[in-house]
This record gives sequence, structure tokens and C-alpha cells, in this order.
Amino acid sequence: MAEPTLGNNIVVQVAIIVRDIETKARAWSEIFGLPLPEIMVTDDYAKTGAEYLDAPTRALCKLAFFHMGQLDVELIEPIGAPSTWQAHMDEKGEGLHHIAFQIQGMQERVAYLDSKGVPLIQRGEYEGGRYAYVDGMRQLGTVLELLEND
Amino acid sequence: MAEPTLGNNIVVQVAIIVRDIETKARAWSEIFGLPLPEIMVTDDYAKTGAEYLDAPTRALCKLAFFHMGQLDVELIEPIGAPSTWQAHMDEKGEGLHHIAFQIQGMQERVAYLDSKGVPLIQRGEYEGGRYAYVDGMRQLGTVLELLEND
Repeated sequence: MAEPTLGNNIVVQVAIIVRDIETKARAWSEIFGLPLPEIMVTDDYAKTGAEYLDAPTRALCKLAFFHMGQLDVELIEPIGAPSTWQAHMDEKGEGLHHIAFQIQGMQERVAYLDSKGVPLIQRGEYEGGRYAYVDGMRQLGTVLELLEND
Repeated sequence: MAEPTLGNNIVVQVAIIVRDIETKARAWSEIFGLPLPEIMVTDDYAKTGAEYLDAPTRALCKLAFFHMGQLDVELIEPIGAPSTWQAHMDEKGEGLHHIAFQIQGMQERVAYLDSKGVPLIQRGEYEGGRYAYVDGMRQLGTVLELLEND
């Protein structure tokens, strides 16, 4: 291929912003007949080094993952500090927030998307990798998350 | 399993409401390096027999599908008459609208979801099958679509 692309077309997460993750997780578990997952809290800033709209942020959220074939349905409850999760809650309320792709070469992929009018809005580190949210609303109709595991 | 469930946990579609399907489809094709799909228009009422909020509707939309592994990313541009697609555009603008599951036994599944507080909001027929949208916003944080092929 002469043209570069995102390099991966497999959706690995569909994420939903929720107000009450414990209640929503029980409903997903019951309605789909899936085990109730552990609810996790994201790492603190010392580990994530997170940035939202180019500024450091102590953004935290609670997370729950349901394994459903090729992808996980991810529930996200924002619990403080500026983030794309909190902005979605403030502006749109609960609902679908992003789809995620596993990629390699984070810096190049983010630069590529920026060149296509899909700018970085949030990034951070997690144990064993890093994530980036890019705002694809104008070009693609959705926020995307890129995940790079070491 | 003693308890009934939806009977399927595999997400087969992630759908996005868009204002300008031709432009968005070109962007998806370019950014992900995927073939530009044909843009279709849904059948008219004589074929769909569609109902939205318990009333017949001549709802139409344009559709484009990108095959991305286990699932399709579906772009939907509502083009007239009341529907869950048009309601999403009016209330929230562009963005992720639903995730879809292939199921068997539409009537029983819809009744099951209704009993769990996830009510039917739209239904209709298509060539070879039928669909139902259920409003899982309160319980699950998202609209679901059920697809049943004959």
C-alpha cells in the first residue's frame, strides 16, 4: 500500500460513559448472562502522566470490561478532573463514547490521524502500554481510542 | 442456564449517525484503507412495515457498511420521517448510536428485554429478516439493535 492508514481495522473495545457503573455492570451481566467483572479505578497521575487538551490532568475513572467475542464492552464512569470521559458526561450524558483499535507506533499513528483532521485530545500511560483518544467526530462521526501494548 | 438472556453476546454492528454519509464514508475508507462501500437507501414502508414508538413510520435512511473483522461499522444518515435515527440526530447530533446483535426468536427476545426495563422503540422488516431497536439507555447506557435473519 502506497498510502499509510491507521494500520488496524479490528475494533477491540466499544466504550460507554455511565453515571453508575456498579448498577450498569449488574444489568449487563444479567441481561447478557456474563460474569460480573471487577470494577477497577484508573491509576493516578504519577503513573498515567495523562494529558487532556494539552494540559496535565489527574483524570480518574472507574472501568468494567465485558468480554464479548473479538471486543470488550467497556463501561466508564468518570470520577473527577477534566477528561474526554467527563466532557462527554457533561455535554451528552450517558452513552456510547468511542471505539478502540490496537495499534503499533503510537506517535506516527497520532501524527497521521492529525494530518487527516482527527486531532489528539487525550493521552496517558497504563501498566504495559499507552492510550490516545483522537477526536474523529468531524471526519468519522466518533471518537477513536488507540491502544499500544509493549 | 436457568435464566434466559439475550442469547448472543457477539457485537455484529457498531452504528454511527451522520449528517453527510458520502463525505463520512470517504473519510472512513481513506483513514482505514478500506474499499468505499456502496451507499444504500432503506426500503419504503410497503416493504419495511416500520414502527417507531408504536406508530407506523415511513422512516428512511442512507446506509454504508465497513467490514472490520467480526463486526461492521455502519454509517446511518436519516433522510426523513420519525425514527430512532432522526431522534438521535435531533437530540444529540452526529455520533455513535447503537451496537447490534444477531439473535433468534425476535418476539421472545424483545419481550425478555422489555421485562428487564429495555423497551422496544422501533422495528421493521428487511429483505430476509427483521430488526428491532430497544432503548437500553437507562439500564445499559446504549440503544441495542437486534437482527434476526430467516
